[in-house]
Amino acid sequence: MRFIDLRSDTVTMPTDKMRKAMAEAEVGDSIYRDDPTLNELEKRAAEKVGKEAAIFVPSGTFGNQLCLFTHCTRGQEIIIGKDYHIVVHEVGAPAVIAGVQLRTLETGIKGELDPKEVEKAIRRDDIHEPSTGLICVENACLGGTVVSVENLKEIKEVAERHNLPVHLDGARIFNAAEALGVDVKEITAQCDSVMFCLSKGLGAPVGSIVAGSREFIEKARRKQKLMGGGMRQVGILAAAGLIAIDEMTERLSIDHENSHYLAEKLDEIDGITVNKNTNDISMVYFVLPETVIEEKEFVQKMYDKGIKISGMENGEYRFVTHVNVSREDVDYVIDTVKELIG
Amino acid sequence: MRFIDLRSDTVTMPTDKMRKAMAEAEVGDSIYRDDPTLNELEKRAAEKVGKEAAIFVPSGTFGNQLCLFTHCTRGQEIIIGKDYHIVVHEVGAPAVIAGVQLRTLETGIKGELDPKEVEKAIRRDDIHEPSTGLICVENACLGGTVVSVENLKEIKEVAERHNLPVHLDGARIFNAAEALGVDVKEITAQCDSVMFCLSKGLGAPVGSIVAGSREFIEKARRKQKLMGGGMRQVGILAAAGLIAIDEMTERLSIDHENSHYLAEKLDEIDGITVNKNTNDISMVYFVLPETVIEEKEFVQKMYDKGIKISGMENGEYRFVTHVNVSREDVDYVIDTVKELIG
Amino acid sequence: MRFIDLRSDTVTMPTDKMRKAMAEAEVGDSIYRDDPTLNELEKRAAEKVGKEAAIFVPSGTFGNQLCLFTHCTRGQEIIIGKDYHIVVHEVGAPAVIAGVQLRTLETGIKGELDPKEVEKAIRRDDIHEPSTGLICVENACLGGTVVSVENLKEIKEVAERHNLPVHLDGARIFNAAEALGVDVKEITAQCDSVMFCLSKGLGAPVGSIVAGSREFIEKARRKQKLMGGGMRQVGILAAAGLIAIDEMTERLSIDHENSHYLAEKLDEIDGITVNKNTNDISMVYFVLPETVIEEKEFVQKMYDKGIKISGMENGEYRFVTHVNVSREDVDYVIDTVKELIG
Amino acid sequence: MRFIDLRSDTVTMPTDKMRKAMAEAEVGDSIYRDDPTLNELEKRAAEKVGKEAAIFVPSGTFGNQLCLFTHCTRGQEIIIGKDYHIVVHEVGAPAVIAGVQLRTLETGIKGELDPKEVEKAIRRDDIHEPSTGLICVENACLGGTVVSVENLKEIKEVAERHNLPVHLDGARIFNAAEALGVDVKEITAQCDSVMFCLSKGLGAPVGSIVAGSREFIEKARRKQKLMGGGMRQVGILAAAGLIAIDEMTERLSIDHENSHYLAEKLDEIDGITVNKNTNDISMVYFVLPETVIEEKEFVQKMYDKGIKISGMENGEYRFVTHVNVSREDVDYVIDTVKELIG
Repeated sequence: MRFIDLRSDTVTMPTDKMRKAMAEAEVGDSIYRDDPTLNELEKRAAEKVGKEAAIFVPSGTFGNQLCLFTHCTRGQEIIIGKDYHIVVHEVGAPAVIAGVQLRTLETGIKGELDPKEVEKAIRRDDIHEPSTGLICVENACLGGTVVSVENLKEIKEVAERHNLPVHLDGARIFNAAEALGVDVKEITAQCDSVMFCLSKGLGAPVGSIVAGSREFIEKARRKQKLMGGGMRQVGILAAAGLIAIDEMTERLSIDHENSHYLAEKLDEIDGITVNKNTNDISMVYFVLPETVIEEKEFVQKMYDKGIKISGMENGEYRFVTHVNVSREDVDYVIDTVKELIG
Repeated sequence: MRFIDLRSDTVTMPTDKMRKAMAEAEVGDSIYRDDPTLNELEKRAAEKVGKEAAIFVPSGTFGNQLCLFTHCTRGQEIIIGKDYHIVVHEVGAPAVIAGVQLRTLETGIKGELDPKEVEKAIRRDDIHEPSTGLICVENACLGGTVVSVENLKEIKEVAERHNLPVHLDGARIFNAAEALGVDVKEITAQCDSVMFCLSKGLGAPVGSIVAGSREFIEKARRKQKLMGGGMRQVGILAAAGLIAIDEMTERLSIDHENSHYLAEKLDEIDGITVNKNTNDISMVYFVLPETVIEEKEFVQKMYDKGIKISGMENGEYRFVTHVNVSREDVDYVIDTVKELIG
Repeated sequence: MRFIDLRSDTVTMPTDKMRKAMAEAEVGDSIYRDDPTLNELEKRAAEKVGKEAAIFVPSGTFGNQLCLFTHCTRGQEIIIGKDYHIVVHEVGAPAVIAGVQLRTLETGIKGELDPKEVEKAIRRDDIHEPSTGLICVENACLGGTVVSVENLKEIKEVAERHNLPVHLDGARIFNAAEALGVDVKEITAQCDSVMFCLSKGLGAPVGSIVAGSREFIEKARRKQKLMGGGMRQVGILAAAGLIAIDEMTERLSIDHENSHYLAEKLDEIDGITVNKNTNDISMVYFVLPETVIEEKEFVQKMYDKGIKISGMENGEYRFVTHVNVSREDVDYVIDTVKELIG
Repeated sequence: MRFIDLRSDTVTMPTDKMRKAMAEAEVGDSIYRDDPTLNELEKRAAEKVGKEAAIFVPSGTFGNQLCLFTHCTRGQEIIIGKDYHIVVHEVGAPAVIAGVQLRTLETGIKGELDPKEVEKAIRRDDIHEPSTGLICVENACLGGTVVSVENLKEIKEVAERHNLPVHLDGARIFNAAEALGVDVKEITAQCDSVMFCLSKGLGAPVGSIVAGSREFIEKARRKQKLMGGGMRQVGILAAAGLIAIDEMTERLSIDHENSHYLAEKLDEIDGITVNKNTNDISMVYFVLPETVIEEKEFVQKMYDKGIKISGMENGEYRFVTHVNVSREDVDYVIDTVKELIG
């Protein structure tokens, strides 16, 4: 049975073209820098986001932690949104690998940091206080929202005034660029390092990219090895990654249209309230009270109808559209929800 | 020239009785557990706060970090107030020594955590999320306020429901007890471990105590050695510590009275606004605009008159009363401030 | 131009069958435990080495460090050979990720630890000393040698007497089994956890396996996520891994025969002295003095003839045979060396 | 009952003059840099060992670990003797606080490192290998021996050739200087940082000194605070420290003479074999077989006669002379041993 899987865009399957590319990829030993497909991916990925250099890593968490480890010295503090992926979804790694302390700030309606609060959060030079080492932003945000270029620009200005680097967790940076209608480079120009995922919306099976200055990436390359990220004939994965950045970024608009359409239609159903604010990319967040249908029952019945969904988080359901969810699938989802709670 | 030093209660000088006790202390090699004065202090200190056992450490920061290191495994998250000493004034040590991540919460008007927010901040069991390892409270708070026993009790209940330990940063726990009019044991009953300082208001030259269950202190003893806290004939310092807990705790009411009196009198001066909320213990926080007198000028002129004060922090001055500040000194301070800005 | 690459078995290319399997692999989101190919690999890999459970990781370094991190608490000491991979080739990771101290021992002629020295190296229970947390063995050893099952058995007995776990860095465990003429399970029965590589001699492009008790692997799964090893549709790589363990382990005897043949023939060449002791698996170590031919010149001229080799390490050259080096290639290598230094 | 305590020189009691000085010490808040006695000690201690600056720390372990933490970045490797205090007696702290890996070398008959082995142990620049960050020497050595200035000079030359700093664990540096008949500065000229203890042979109750360049000490000051070493009115201890470096260093020759005398006399007793090689300073190591007298019985009977000794370590007893052991005491010890085993 084929399922429509709305749990996340992490479930995306490699396309046939990716599979073919992986099967035929010219590879080599990447630690000897002999893997032509990897080298090509790192070069093209860097160009794509307007940075000097890039490095392939096994996951988004790996990439973010590598950046923290490379930017900061141990015991420093990083300024970051309290609900960002690095804080909530990376198993406490900042305290283990980079050995940094988190200074978490409230985030705004779009997941943005307030540049004034960022500036206030930078520690003064005092023997009692941790020294601030990095500012971390996120775009698109985990909650389905997109932060404006303007906001990032202001934060970058604060950072520059205080001589601090900015890291961008851009796991879904191409979704953000699509939603903002800008070239991704306009966003990445506001940071010193960026991590973005080739998997998720872009559909590659495995892998993320860290991009930054040549010097930063050289430093990161050694620390990547220390963290166990040195993979040998990784051109296999890079082959899919090349397709991801070359072709799959273009089609994210389809996922967004599907997501907006799904949001609109779900909101029309009695008992459902869609959160319009968090529908910037491919995610639809909505409230469906347990008085209408119990969580477990809803998840199970959807599953019985061939649709995988997650249970509520913070009182909301989240449906995610992606390359393996067509407009017809969306219509089927809408009809099924109507049927179940109508 | 004798100065009146209002910068902090950390400036307190050992009393003559302490000096005599230090000079005459019976000491031994504490690593062999041969120091009778140290052993006596650790025993009496534990009793004083109603715990099974205690260990002497070189500083409050040392004691707090030792507790984090002993309670938590690496990569865990601790729930703590965003402006607590452990977060702001311990140089980022939680990420270095214990290797834990901070989950910082807003604090209320008295520096307290909201038990409901604490409960919400406990992570669920999920492979992506850090696991919560400890809840940290503080009393008295760094900002001069005191948290109610009732609040601590509610937090302890939350902790017990979730099977989590509670650590109390009680650097000024005896000030808190005095302000609340309770025996210190009523406060420490709400935590699994407590750190309190023998220096600061209690006047001992050096040292703090960590108290907890026998098992906890045994574990801590080994980690104290690892952190470099194994001091040999430390009975010298313990001798002063015994006087601190036996006699100096009794006289904190005098410092509080002086502080309240100073607050009242300063508030009567035109141009000064005392923060009444933060005058629970020996600290007086007040606003004195630079339009009235410039910060540097004020600090310098006070110094010239024999009074040491710190510059503003977060827009406020802080004057601290303690064992080396008499009522006459307070009167002299009031007169001097009047003269300078009158 | 096709090169014969003798630098390492890390340069092995995926076979056509692997490429086909990767292209057709059924995959899913591994974090949701939905990747059937990954699940199959982890199950079969565990069975292969006679352990309850297994987990796929991006590299051998990742796998070893994950085991240290999972077995030990921070500040513990591990007993290990001074020239083992974990010590020399993992960028200092033990001090960063697991936070453990190394107690390095001399290794014997076959790379083995002396069980008596291991026992002496276990620390006593003393408040000054680190506590011993783990014994690490390696087989086959980095230097091309193989350790006897008997030796590992004696070390395991020491470990059990002292209630300590044993970790086996078995990056080339199937080479060791082939060389010893035993089933790999006879070797892995002597350890609590084992890491082995699907790449290297087994030819998979990327990936290693950690196997151990179910409880150990469950603990490791969470730490793998923390370290950034959570890869989504990793069934792509697992598909190659399945072929590696099912089929490629069988053919290592060919590489060993080629290596022994190469050793014999090289040793017959005037000016070359082959180290017979270190020719247990697919590696040939030999001395070729710079008086005969200069290092740089030798490497370059071999390259010009289509053969990639590394420069000397510790005064020796190392040639490695593997799946992409045929008997004809070996003959060509021998002829070329003869020609160059004859 | 007054005991003669031969277990260690860590048991030394503060002299009457130290007690008087502590009682009368002018102190202040050291974090504000207001403690005149501390400032004086740090200044004089730096001069004494010929360094630009110094910092007082609570223990020798603290001082050594602070130096590792200040010299190295995380994941680096330090070259050190396998039986040095930092390796064996600091509870695994190097892996926790500095986060460094140990490269341990065999030590010579006098506890010295072999400069050639040190040079060989420095890692080359390779992405797989840890980078070497520091060379650690020790003098006097824990085993009672003293390393020649010549040896340290050769190691310093190796270090300089490779642009590496040298740290000297000089817990008993003044004993070493006395035994070598040189000014302590001749020894400390061979290192970039030195830690020495004011307790042990010098008799101060608590505290050690780290000395180095002004820049190094400034960096260390912040890390000392992070590690919990910020003690307030620590001039109390510094007062004893001043006497330790001014007066107590002069009298170590008496302890050495007593130790040599004790060694000679013990060696004359049937059944006892004194290790002459390890009798360089105040320590006498000797073998007394259990066939002559059982360990437990010997320790207990000595205790009953008023003499505290430790049990055997590595098959040897150790008797240590110090300021609280007079020549009469030594004679009494000799007579008692004779009586017990005669």
